[in-house]
Amino acid sequence: MGCAPMAHVLFSKFVKVNPANPTWINRDRFVLSNGHGCVLQYVMWHLIGYNISIDDLKSFRQMGSKTPGHPEANHGIDGIEVSTGPLGQGISNAVGLALAEEHMAATFNRPGYEIINNYTYVILGDGCLQEGVQNEAVALAGHLKLGKLIALYDDNHIQIDGDTSLGFTEDVCMRLEACGWHTIVVGNGDSDLESMEKAIEQAKAVTDKPSLIKIRTTIGFGSKNEGEEKVHGAPLGAEDVANVKTKFGFNKDEHFHVSADVYDFWKAVVAKNTAIETQWKETFAKYSAAYPELAAELNRRISKKLPANFRSLLPTYKPTDSAIATRKLSETVLNKIAESIPELIGGSADLTGSNLTRWKTAKDFQHPSTNLGDYSGRYIRFGVREHGMAAICNGIQAYGGLIPFGATFFNFISYALGAVRLSALSKHQVLYIMTHDSIGLGEDGPTHQPIETLASIRALPNLISLRPADGNEVSGAYAAALENTTRPSVLILTRQNLPHLEGSSLEKTLRGAYVLSDSPNASVCFVASGSEVSLVVDAAKLLAQEGIHSRVVSMPSWELFEEQSHEYKESVFPKGIPVISAEAMSTFGWSKYAHVSLGLDTFGMSAPYQQIYKKVGLVPDVVAEKAKKVIAHYKTAVPEYKLATIL
Amino acid sequence: MGCAPMAHVLFSKFVKVNPANPTWINRDRFVLSNGHGCVLQYVMWHLIGYNISIDDLKSFRQMGSKTPGHPEANHGIDGIEVSTGPLGQGISNAVGLALAEEHMAATFNRPGYEIINNYTYVILGDGCLQEGVQNEAVALAGHLKLGKLIALYDDNHIQIDGDTSLGFTEDVCMRLEACGWHTIVVGNGDSDLESMEKAIEQAKAVTDKPSLIKIRTTIGFGSKNEGEEKVHGAPLGAEDVANVKTKFGFNKDEHFHVSADVYDFWKAVVAKNTAIETQWKETFAKYSAAYPELAAELNRRISKKLPANFRSLLPTYKPTDSAIATRKLSETVLNKIAESIPELIGGSADLTGSNLTRWKTAKDFQHPSTNLGDYSGRYIRFGVREHGMAAICNGIQAYGGLIPFGATFFNFISYALGAVRLSALSKHQVLYIMTHDSIGLGEDGPTHQPIETLASIRALPNLISLRPADGNEVSGAYAAALENTTRPSVLILTRQNLPHLEGSSLEKTLRGAYVLSDSPNASVCFVASGSEVSLVVDAAKLLAQEGIHSRVVSMPSWELFEEQSHEYKESVFPKGIPVISAEAMSTFGWSKYAHVSLGLDTFGMSAPYQQIYKKVGLVPDVVAEKAKKVIAHYKTAVPEYKLATIL
Ligand SMILES: [Ca+2]
Ligand SMILES: [Ca+2]
Repeated sequence: MGCAPMAHVLFSKFVKVNPANPTWINRDRFVLSNGHGCVLQYVMWHLIGYNISIDDLKSFRQMGSKTPGHPEANHGIDGIEVSTGPLGQGISNAVGLALAEEHMAATFNRPGYEIINNYTYVILGDGCLQEGVQNEAVALAGHLKLGKLIALYDDNHIQIDGDTSLGFTEDVCMRLEACGWHTIVVGNGDSDLESMEKAIEQAKAVTDKPSLIKIRTTIGFGSKNEGEEKVHGAPLGAEDVANVKTKFGFNKDEHFHVSADVYDFWKAVVAKNTAIETQWKETFAKYSAAYPELAAELNRRISKKLPANFRSLLPTYKPTDSAIATRKLSETVLNKIAESIPELIGGSADLTGSNLTRWKTAKDFQHPSTNLGDYSGRYIRFGVREHGMAAICNGIQAYGGLIPFGATFFNFISYALGAVRLSALSKHQVLYIMTHDSIGLGEDGPTHQPIETLASIRALPNLISLRPADGNEVSGAYAAALENTTRPSVLILTRQNLPHLEGSSLEKTLRGAYVLSDSPNASVCFVASGSEVSLVVDAAKLLAQEGIHSRVVSMPSWELFEEQSHEYKESVFPKGIPVISAEAMSTFGWSKYAHVSLGLDTFGMSAPYQQIYKKVGLVPDVVAEKAKKVIAHYKTAVPEYKLATIL
Repeated sequence: MGCAPMAHVLFSKFVKVNPANPTWINRDRFVLSNGHGCVLQYVMWHLIGYNISIDDLKSFRQMGSKTPGHPEANHGIDGIEVSTGPLGQGISNAVGLALAEEHMAATFNRPGYEIINNYTYVILGDGCLQEGVQNEAVALAGHLKLGKLIALYDDNHIQIDGDTSLGFTEDVCMRLEACGWHTIVVGNGDSDLESMEKAIEQAKAVTDKPSLIKIRTTIGFGSKNEGEEKVHGAPLGAEDVANVKTKFGFNKDEHFHVSADVYDFWKAVVAKNTAIETQWKETFAKYSAAYPELAAELNRRISKKLPANFRSLLPTYKPTDSAIATRKLSETVLNKIAESIPELIGGSADLTGSNLTRWKTAKDFQHPSTNLGDYSGRYIRFGVREHGMAAICNGIQAYGGLIPFGATFFNFISYALGAVRLSALSKHQVLYIMTHDSIGLGEDGPTHQPIETLASIRALPNLISLRPADGNEVSGAYAAALENTTRPSVLILTRQNLPHLEGSSLEKTLRGAYVLSDSPNASVCFVASGSEVSLVVDAAKLLAQEGIHSRVVSMPSWELFEEQSHEYKESVFPKGIPVISAEAMSTFGWSKYAHVSLGLDTFGMSAPYQQIYKKVGLVPDVVAEKAKKVIAHYKTAVPEYKLATIL
């Protein structure tokens, strides 16, 4: 309730949207970063004509409703750009939305045709300003001088634990100014609508800095407990609701009632905005005539259609090609596709030289005044800000017309999981390019070696994990990541060189798992991903020398495999022979497919990677010996998967 | 190399440690937050006499060495307080170390006996200052006025991607001042030792604010590429090493050589510090005479011994006791133990009223000037800073004498995983009290409902996850968490009420899994944790009405179960009957124990929780029907775990 006045000013005077055309590319973006206040957004959405009815409002937080407890993007309500509620995410997404706007403007605008020039507005509260992800994102926004980003800070001095004096006493404006922001203070956000309007005008006038408008408000303004934290989470009592309604001139006995004059007020606002959108359409028609290729390209991108020839750009490899790290193969793919897929935009969290994510012709996304790049650049220097990077990528994707990527060491995706989870929940197509994917990282040691990380990622719904084993599988991984437009992908890549495999292909990779090599008399089936596929291939060769035949399954993606037919799945993992999995990390989860899992369920160690592999028994001769024991065990015993202690 | 001069000043003039007594409780704490520069720390450690030999230095980053690629706490080197390398952690741990110092001082010092008064010194670089976790921690440090925390910022204008102008252009001092810090700038950190010394003196003089000293340095000072990012990760070439040695007056042909006068210099420093420690011991002896109980209590705490009667404090329950949420049972435990275990210190990330972590007699840890508490208080208002909370808890634990806890919704442990992982790797006993642990959270919806989270936590090495099912299991969970002193525990608790179970006990809980109810003719075994145990108990009752007998296993902790004997494990999960697991979240990982896993592998939904449980089939009648199908399937088929599609 405390930020209703600022929302009133913002939506009545500034936010240019047309609910009848909710995907209009040049609409202003609005993010309610304090998503727990979403009733405000749902009511506003109803008033301005988004697809929320009075019945939807009545079914707030009910099964199957359009009005869940926090706003969810891609959940059936138009105009919800990103999912908010997890604190700090919305403001960070907004940085991505504003970044995307500047990039699209620099890419598509032409003299006389300002096709893209929308604003990104945010309302946020104390909680968002305490989250680290927010500081990462605002620091980058300030560095990048994102002048069309305007944040309204609902400064109500209250958070869930009580008064902000308990733990949040920083000078917010000073911190944001230190990060390159412009700030304004409005002393009375409960009723001084004029000052709020003026402040937003001032914010718009500052074009080379994002703006924060700090607005002092009273939580639960007008209610019995106004200004107290108990208003924060709990509903007002029936009596107090009546009290508030009376105070503000409403009929206290009418529930979920909106009077005709209120509807009329918002109808006029919508009419004004619709006229602006109509005007834009006319401009775009002229633009399409003057720049038909650009207009077609913009439409292609918005519709998420990849260039027709896209798969042919992806390289193929023969087993005789030189061994090479999958991070390096990823770099090769980026170099092949970067010019043809200009919607690809992203960068690394200060590990460019290790992640190998900067293609040869890349230009940095930077404010032109820096002489380090400009807004048409597509390589983002995220800085050491993994969580901010992921949240910003979510915002970039939500803008439309762009496929963002972020990169770091795989281990440090754990810094970013709060936002990666929301990529998945909100169906944002984001590519996470994660290198140094196991103990194969070597000398940097256990602080940097992922162990549990892939299990965490595989357990996340609506996300594709891809751990390719060689060049063809890297091409397959990119095909999957780029063609799946409604979920994020995590590409998990090695630091160390890997050989190209006999039998791999892009197409097979897309099935998630496939038989790489086989024998009609196989007595054991190996399954592995990434760097351990060539390991089990070598183990199988050793066994073959002793007349023991095996099948080898390469399994780059559990998620893609699970989507195959039951018949296909059974054709990959045959009945009657034991399955042994191998991955140079936690075995967690592998019981689903394997009778025995090889890996390491402890933290790693600092040493040259070959020595670590040897130490943990992930070398061909040790694996072959273990396989013989497994084969012997399952010859005499009914397969008993649980609690088997064979080795 | 760039921060060698500041380290020289710091260790020669300020840091009071005695390597011969590395666990001296009042030693100054030193944290190298930019852990990738650990060669500096290892060399310094060698010089001042910690247990690092020249041979250890030669085996840098080699298998089994004491000198891994990044500093690891509890890894065999004395004086490494916390593990660093993952950026932003060290400075945040240091906030915890400084907080712990203030609390221990307020608790144990008496007039004339300043037993605790050490400083916490940090060296950090640009990377740490970009990480969000760092902003969370410094904001809290500023609020808490931790005046004995002194951070030296190695301002070398370089990070891995290149010049900091690429993406890190904020005014660091201004940001920290906004957060309540005192800041000082030293212009020449390459050779102006005097100014650095003076700055540290000034920092010590400011007692009600943490201090940041920004020190301009040149990376690779003296080397061919000084000031360039290529010096950051890569070793200098042999030629350049010789060049640097010559430049600084060393013999270029001597490797790993330390001259006698250098050793002598540091011997004198150590002698000075040893005298200080000897003085402290004398003071402590007098203190022990004057305050024998306090001294004994301090020693008890440092030795990590719980009070002898501790387990008797934990409540027990009967099945006839009222149903109650496990978060509420956790609150009851905290109320029972808080006074008897005064080493327990912690709080919530602004969800106190939901996590129920504040015991009745708690006093806030606050600067006395706020009138909200004082430094003897043990309840920390972490604010909405989950990652900072976890990193600060690591630092508090590393100080000694304290058992820290942090609380939030279980879903938001994903914000903190970067630090939780280091709790486990560094063997820090931290209690993570995580409530609202599943779809049982209800109306707040999928943004707040953990699905993959427990799988992530279970996959982490050296950590205990505990998801208790009722009152006795909550007591057992606290027993495990408090008695396991070398690893963190995650307590996973419900929002909703649960009945007390027939057959539960504290002791059984400590075995990780146990038979809750059984039948000699069981044809199916249910296994569940937390809120789903009573669900499968009810399903088993429905089956019993039809003459179908079952066993029910309660499994609060996979990790504790895995540590039991093979015989015990086989006694819990009998051969020959199918096992069905149930958890109201992802089924990921359950194939290890169960033939069929019930749960949900998609995101949740916003609705009253009973409706969500019903929607996903986690209600007794549906579970009982599914169990019948499973029993029928396994009567006619050899158990085939992989790819079973029965339901
Ligand atoms: Ca607030
Ligand atoms: Ca630096």
